[in-house]
Amino acid sequence: MIVAMQEGADEGLIQQVIEQLVKMGFEVHRSTGARMTVLGAVGSGIDFDIRILELLPGVQEVHRISSPYKLAGRSFRPEGTIVKLANGIVIGGNEIVVMAGPCSVETREQIFSSAEAVAKAGAKVLRGGAFKPRSSPYSFQGHGEDALKLLREAGEKFKLLIISEVMEISQIPLMLPYVDILQVGARNMQNFNLLRELAKVRKPVLLKRGIAATFEELLLSAEYIMAGGNYDVILCERGIRTFETYTRNTMDISAIPIIHKLSHLPMTADPSHGTGRRDKVAPMARASVAAGADALLIEVHNDPNKAWSDGAQSLFPEQFAKLMDELRMIAPAVGRSIG
Amino acid sequence: MIVAMQEGADEGLIQQVIEQLVKMGFEVHRSTGARMTVLGAVGSGIDFDIRILELLPGVQEVHRISSPYKLAGRSFRPEGTIVKLANGIVIGGNEIVVMAGPCSVETREQIFSSAEAVAKAGAKVLRGGAFKPRSSPYSFQGHGEDALKLLREAGEKFKLLIISEVMEISQIPLMLPYVDILQVGARNMQNFNLLRELAKVRKPVLLKRGIAATFEELLLSAEYIMAGGNYDVILCERGIRTFETYTRNTMDISAIPIIHKLSHLPMTADPSHGTGRRDKVAPMARASVAAGADALLIEVHNDPNKAWSDGAQSLFPEQFAKLMDELRMIAPAVGRSIG
Amino acid sequence: MIVAMQEGADEGLIQQVIEQLVKMGFEVHRSTGARMTVLGAVGSGIDFDIRILELLPGVQEVHRISSPYKLAGRSFRPEGTIVKLANGIVIGGNEIVVMAGPCSVETREQIFSSAEAVAKAGAKVLRGGAFKPRSSPYSFQGHGEDALKLLREAGEKFKLLIISEVMEISQIPLMLPYVDILQVGARNMQNFNLLRELAKVRKPVLLKRGIAATFEELLLSAEYIMAGGNYDVILCERGIRTFETYTRNTMDISAIPIIHKLSHLPMTADPSHGTGRRDKVAPMARASVAAGADALLIEVHNDPNKAWSDGAQSLFPEQFAKLMDELRMIAPAVGRSIG
Amino acid sequence: MIVAMQEGADEGLIQQVIEQLVKMGFEVHRSTGARMTVLGAVGSGIDFDIRILELLPGVQEVHRISSPYKLAGRSFRPEGTIVKLANGIVIGGNEIVVMAGPCSVETREQIFSSAEAVAKAGAKVLRGGAFKPRSSPYSFQGHGEDALKLLREAGEKFKLLIISEVMEISQIPLMLPYVDILQVGARNMQNFNLLRELAKVRKPVLLKRGIAATFEELLLSAEYIMAGGNYDVILCERGIRTFETYTRNTMDISAIPIIHKLSHLPMTADPSHGTGRRDKVAPMARASVAAGADALLIEVHNDPNKAWSDGAQSLFPEQFAKLMDELRMIAPAVGRSIG
Repeated sequence: MIVAMQEGADEGLIQQVIEQLVKMGFEVHRSTGARMTVLGAVGSGIDFDIRILELLPGVQEVHRISSPYKLAGRSFRPEGTIVKLANGIVIGGNEIVVMAGPCSVETREQIFSSAEAVAKAGAKVLRGGAFKPRSSPYSFQGHGEDALKLLREAGEKFKLLIISEVMEISQIPLMLPYVDILQVGARNMQNFNLLRELAKVRKPVLLKRGIAATFEELLLSAEYIMAGGNYDVILCERGIRTFETYTRNTMDISAIPIIHKLSHLPMTADPSHGTGRRDKVAPMARASVAAGADALLIEVHNDPNKAWSDGAQSLFPEQFAKLMDELRMIAPAVGRSIG
Repeated sequence: MIVAMQEGADEGLIQQVIEQLVKMGFEVHRSTGARMTVLGAVGSGIDFDIRILELLPGVQEVHRISSPYKLAGRSFRPEGTIVKLANGIVIGGNEIVVMAGPCSVETREQIFSSAEAVAKAGAKVLRGGAFKPRSSPYSFQGHGEDALKLLREAGEKFKLLIISEVMEISQIPLMLPYVDILQVGARNMQNFNLLRELAKVRKPVLLKRGIAATFEELLLSAEYIMAGGNYDVILCERGIRTFETYTRNTMDISAIPIIHKLSHLPMTADPSHGTGRRDKVAPMARASVAAGADALLIEVHNDPNKAWSDGAQSLFPEQFAKLMDELRMIAPAVGRSIG
Repeated sequence: MIVAMQEGADEGLIQQVIEQLVKMGFEVHRSTGARMTVLGAVGSGIDFDIRILELLPGVQEVHRISSPYKLAGRSFRPEGTIVKLANGIVIGGNEIVVMAGPCSVETREQIFSSAEAVAKAGAKVLRGGAFKPRSSPYSFQGHGEDALKLLREAGEKFKLLIISEVMEISQIPLMLPYVDILQVGARNMQNFNLLRELAKVRKPVLLKRGIAATFEELLLSAEYIMAGGNYDVILCERGIRTFETYTRNTMDISAIPIIHKLSHLPMTADPSHGTGRRDKVAPMARASVAAGADALLIEVHNDPNKAWSDGAQSLFPEQFAKLMDELRMIAPAVGRSIG
Repeated sequence: MIVAMQEGADEGLIQQVIEQLVKMGFEVHRSTGARMTVLGAVGSGIDFDIRILELLPGVQEVHRISSPYKLAGRSFRPEGTIVKLANGIVIGGNEIVVMAGPCSVETREQIFSSAEAVAKAGAKVLRGGAFKPRSSPYSFQGHGEDALKLLREAGEKFKLLIISEVMEISQIPLMLPYVDILQVGARNMQNFNLLRELAKVRKPVLLKRGIAATFEELLLSAEYIMAGGNYDVILCERGIRTFETYTRNTMDISAIPIIHKLSHLPMTADPSHGTGRRDKVAPMARASVAAGADALLIEVHNDPNKAWSDGAQSLFPEQFAKLMDELRMIAPAVGRSIG
């Protein structure tokens, strides 16, 4: 941490800040210039509140230098993390993995038909919601375990791994037998009790960025999972909230190269939630691959106009197949491939 | 719902939209003007996705007219809700209720000393965290049930009611014997599983606005609690995330009169989290009262510089006492009083 | 400026950064700790781009310590600036000055009737637009010099000073004979050519914060005017753009105490543009006074329903009179008065 | 426009709204349902303030249906606009046009060396600032006409067209002999006096989106230029302001497909200002092409570490050449080519 004293701050004020730093467990390096004094503080733990220093008299500015996360930071594994799944599939390797399927599991026919379509077009993982976080209490809330069973069956039939969202601690044991990746939605990115429980699980967790989460907060939430022992964390950009309301969210494509710089964890993009509109999914999926995404999460429904949820942002099977062809053309420009 | 067709949309396209509306359960009123056709749709349930219509060919714009919440809306109780607590204290009445105390319960001495100070200055409710939602896994996470016991004891001694934050379903039964109001933090505003459980409780819930939540989303979350049977919901503004980073959040004072127009539920302001800086708490507390807040939630610590969490935004006891005097001068300008 | 090197950055990288700093005109203080090296850089001018250092190999973080503005900063005049106007009126003194009137000058009858109403209720300055910045080319763009003449006449009759908006360099000489304060609108806050010309004028300038301007940017724009010789700058909060669209803008009340801390310049609040809705103007005006505003800018129209622009956010004369009474009750709580 | 009355609004209130609509010049269509009345209003001009209706008693919601711009809307030219420049170069055609060069024109050597590099790599237009909008009055403000002369010379030597930024009305006649495209920066997007003057010019205008401008506002500003007679408008995304501050701006890639849907005007992307960091320019440039951009605007400097402005976001010549190769690989995926 760096504390810059105001010009003219007298020795008494400087000593007071030094004492506070020492009390907080820091080793202090003092640098006195012609006009001002700067205090460098190192060696404490990673949890402290810099605002306490900001409010001390004579202090001009305080900056923490060490990042507040350790395990999630790029320097922890400079070479990058490759998350290993079943069937030899990995996320973070050369091949870009596409995860696709409907928003919710509705019926056997719907999920099998959707699974067939996405498998045929080249997806490797089937997505589908069993528990749904809905803004309104009057909306469809998911079929629960029945949905998970259907997902697993469809996955086995079409050789697809399974990803599905977990919303609550009690759902974890229920989901483990059925899914390959546990997804944490944007609204639960800072549900710390849930994150702590997912740290104990031996399955990868895909953690979505909250709609107003900074990169630092996203990585701190990943740190919760890693600090508890689960290092297989996959991050995901799915749109942030801005002043523009034409689309539900503004998909932040720059999150992809930025997270790659700050962290060693694989980075996924979800253009379906990122835009909320079917006609914007393809351009944003292409942009994500061009920007370096390790994986994509895309909503595809066998009959979007009849979907029980999020039909408006689900691709038709033929749109998805066309998109996959476009993505295969773009991947080589970033030294990647798509299966 | 209103569907405006594009100029020149032909009869076939119009019929297709009408069919979709009927399939969704709406009764359709058609209005054909010289240049365009407008379809009014009424009578369905309150859960539907307007984006499905937006994507139909020939549709220019779709607007939902009915609000997506019912119980939380002003028209449900035009006269306003008054939440009754113990000791004859009510929130939403003529008197503005001040809830104050430290961020976390740390020690017996700390909580008793803080409680004494806030009671003396005129607060009616003691706040204090037993379970803490912390961005970092390495931060102090609260003393749990021990903290709740201390809160209750301090509350009884100084005749203060108790408010404390619940983060997880399993904490609810643990907290009920100790608290008068269950607080849901900004990060859990859309933790729908938690909201559904709180709907079954017979104690008031103070629901904080998420840092990126629209007013509609806040009211939909209140609707979750009310739809399950708990009508004693108190709302709270505690700062939203904007482009300006000088303060942690930008406290949206306008939320107070706006929520009062949209909803019958009482509206609270939390200037401590709203600003994150001790020196900005007093002006924003005064502004909240001037804008019509029904209650305030303020962090006060007997010794803020030694606080284990949020010391930087906690008032010293003497600052709080001075603030209470200022608030007493402002309240009459809005036809209110402070005890 | 402070440059923190990455842990493990070798001597070569450190020397490279030092050389760059020296080349930029800085004197460098080096502080080497057990784990990392911190470089303090002082003594250069105030214009440099810290990103150049951020991109050097081995650099972890760079923070500028000195603020990028000098004349607008609080330390330039710790006691605060009091802007003196005619008639013994000052902005930044004990008395809160209220500036009121219609959005645009429309007709002689309208401006005289509005002026009479606001003078009677206690306003000291008459506002009214002669040149209007309108988002649409098809909207009313103002009556120009004719409007200025009417403003002056009405001001003289009712003993009101005049404030009106300048949009373009060529309007400055035209306006000077008629107005007491030149207003720069939010959209022109970074019209640097205009600011440079206003620096040469010997009349006060009221500078509105842009809808997405940080406090630093607002003060840098004030610096443009002051650096050119005009120290009579009055700042104004008028709402920022956030994700919430219920109101046109989100009025940032916290800007008032924050600007008072960062700068010595007087701070005004404009609740009419800050909310865009007549029914929210009064609560936000009250909140502004409670938060410490030095002056208010409020739209009042003799017949708002017939206004040619912004009628929806203009108060009726009787609403304005009632508001002034409320403000007079609040002012003493912050040690101020209203005439 | 659509006005939805509240449930239970009585006939008197409905008549009052109808009268107001008629007074505003609308033809009114009334649709009375079982629960509520909806009024459709058509036929007025395109300039009106819907807030006046929102505030009438009994009104629940008002939505404008017709867009507030006409000439800039897609329906005005469904086939899309192709802006023709010299040398047979067009923007909006099959070929993606790359405009590149330094932030500011500094020296003859710098601009010639930069021009040579970008021409060799495939750029068709040379960018370079003669007049610079700088947040600080102490920053380099540009060389003015001398810079324009150098630009033109360099352009002629390396067969590049010229684009440069205009900040002020008086600069227009000065610039016309030297430039092929006049650029309006983000800060001037709503400098309406400037836009009106550019409407009279017979050269294309590249209009950048303001950092907090909605799509509608961007198109209304384009409308200013078109309404005055200049139809050759090129739009440009260059980053918006969000809560995330890791990069200067958040580049909104989705603006590209959205503007293509709303408007017929060509859409450009500026990844240099969109990110503010050299290491993020290439991924965002690739993403822009993948999302369908018609042109790119990229800062390239012969020696970025010595640049007088924006060196941190300028590419080295060899980085630019590599990027052009990547873009050439991506373009076919969207049916385009790069020269």
